[in-house]
Amino acid sequence: MPLHERHCQACGPGTPPLAEAALAPLLAQVPAWQRADNGAVLQRDFTFDSYWAGLGFINAAAWIAQQEKHHPDMELGYKKVRVRFTTHAAKGLTENDFIGAAKVDRLLG
Amino acid sequence: MPLHERHCQACGPGTPPLAEAALAPLLAQVPAWQRADNGAVLQRDFTFDSYWAGLGFINAAAWIAQQEKHHPDMELGYKKVRVRFTTHAAKGLTENDFIGAAKVDRLLG
Repeated sequence: MPLHERHCQACGPGTPPLAEAALAPLLAQVPAWQRADNGAVLQRDFTFDSYWAGLGFINAAAWIAQQEKHHPDMELGYKKVRVRFTTHAAKGLTENDFIGAAKVDRLLG
Repeated sequence: MPLHERHCQACGPGTPPLAEAALAPLLAQVPAWQRADNGAVLQRDFTFDSYWAGLGFINAAAWIAQQEKHHPDMELGYKKVRVRFTTHAAKGLTENDFIGAAKVDRLLG
């Protein structure tokens, strides 16, 4: 099943981050995203024609985040938004981050 | 007139940042805000009871920003928001940043 059709799984303390070998095939499915913060964060920058468009995008992404109970950090700038997924409980990346990223990508149609 | 009742002034390339001596009385009017990025940014962290509350706050602050045509960077985290004002044209702080900060403070009632 494609990432954007899956759902984030509940996780808690002790949830392990994905091993590097497991990350490559997931990264290939969200090629517009980069790893940041020594690899612990999955990040993408979006640009928009207006301030309102960026704000609307944040609201839509927040709706998805709340549905999945997996919340990225989002930075609203002037005509730009940065979205950053990580799994705090794992201190790194899990499949949840890639599912979230794929769902955010789908907002762009 | 108190800062929150004033309006941001249009500025452009060549607008000078405020001198240090001029900053002190303005900072005293928004005591919850700190300077960051070597003093070029006026920043405040807000915490909320829910993710939705933080998102609503960002929307309200964005409305003010658009009214004033002076847009802070805003970072939405889980139950927290960071608001960062600076005046890009001045490469530092101007009165606009303090007016914006005071108006955002007023959102909290």
